[in-house]
Amino acid sequence: MSASIYEKLEQLGIELQAPAAPAAAYKTWVQSGNLLFLSGHIARQNGKPWVGQLGRDLDTASGKQAARAVAIDLLGSLHAATGDLNRIAKVVKLMCLVNSAADFTEQHLVANGCSDLLAEVLGERGEHARSAFGASQIPLGACVEIELIVELN
Amino acid sequence: MSASIYEKLEQLGIELQAPAAPAAAYKTWVQSGNLLFLSGHIARQNGKPWVGQLGRDLDTASGKQAARAVAIDLLGSLHAATGDLNRIAKVVKLMCLVNSAADFTEQHLVANGCSDLLAEVLGERGEHARSAFGASQIPLGACVEIELIVELN
Amino acid sequence: MSASIYEKLEQLGIELQAPAAPAAAYKTWVQSGNLLFLSGHIARQNGKPWVGQLGRDLDTASGKQAARAVAIDLLGSLHAATGDLNRIAKVVKLMCLVNSAADFTEQHLVANGCSDLLAEVLGERGEHARSAFGASQIPLGACVEIELIVELN
Repeated sequence: MSASIYEKLEQLGIELQAPAAPAAAYKTWVQSGNLLFLSGHIARQNGKPWVGQLGRDLDTASGKQAARAVAIDLLGSLHAATGDLNRIAKVVKLMCLVNSAADFTEQHLVANGCSDLLAEVLGERGEHARSAFGASQIPLGACVEIELIVELN
Repeated sequence: MSASIYEKLEQLGIELQAPAAPAAAYKTWVQSGNLLFLSGHIARQNGKPWVGQLGRDLDTASGKQAARAVAIDLLGSLHAATGDLNRIAKVVKLMCLVNSAADFTEQHLVANGCSDLLAEVLGERGEHARSAFGASQIPLGACVEIELIVELN
Repeated sequence: MSASIYEKLEQLGIELQAPAAPAAAYKTWVQSGNLLFLSGHIARQNGKPWVGQLGRDLDTASGKQAARAVAIDLLGSLHAATGDLNRIAKVVKLMCLVNSAADFTEQHLVANGCSDLLAEVLGERGEHARSAFGASQIPLGACVEIELIVELN
């Protein structure tokens, strides 16, 4: 028998946090029909923006870790939005923005840090369509920002 | 009693314009089910593209004004699409692209220019999920471009 | 009588290909309700990433050709996803990322390479809402990346 979502999180040593209040005039998520639209979540480290540009200040492995940290924050927001992650029917679409210097071309490998964790925690329901590309900057200088569309049961 | 949407627009001295014809091979909006997808609207000033890069040619306050101008154009398109802004159930999702130099990190404050006006005019129905980030350029050199997903009644 | 979708493709000399397996941890498409979300497809030439930055390595006409190549790959993915392109009710929304140097401002003209082909092949059903803007880079150094939302019957 496969572990439940919350057992899986415990096995991975992940403790979900309540989402931070948005730093500006918007909401962390909005539901329309059975689709939940999550706002872009920037990467954080020790509660502060995970700052840096890929290809200038950070390498691909660090960027991937930052994207994994965003995945954990997205799961925290999803838990807060749904009350129970088992209500997730599937992750539909992910958009991953990577703060990129002009010659950094591994945005897809950075984004895997988020995609891999979603699949590990949610199983088949975590598999999603995706776009990843380079942003010239991200709010507060963060290295990665990710938004999500999720279908609920 | 709260003012209606159109009274609010009048109080703010805002006159909605019919949307300009798209400058290329696409439509200003497409409806699918009860979701209305609005194309990216670039900032305009006196009918011409509001040109410039944040962190190079424009400061945050100017960018915020440009984003507010986009909000007015988006409301004009929404009025044209719906015939009556009261048909809006809620603004679901906003994506704000800010033409950004490599070190400009206040895309979220620029985006507030749009978010704040939508909330002021539409009230709770104007509150939305959002992503804001830096684009390396925007069509016609515009400083801001914003697209919207809106749920209709 | 207008030619069917597949007759139109034949007239244009276009042979659809099965989509390449995603180069990372995501799926080529996910369906939610009657909406099909296609992942970002990067431009390819002779089976390899179509590399380059607009305004530095490539001109607008080349970028437009690359966007047309992406449209053909998107149609290949749509055929694989649906089994029959006639199941498409309408193309809803297109997002076109153009790998752009700081002074390139013709992302909308590049995107037309994709929009024009969708309209030519699918007719009215191919007309869509759209955003186009400059990315500071794109995975594997590709010049163009396009994602799509399509409504099915």
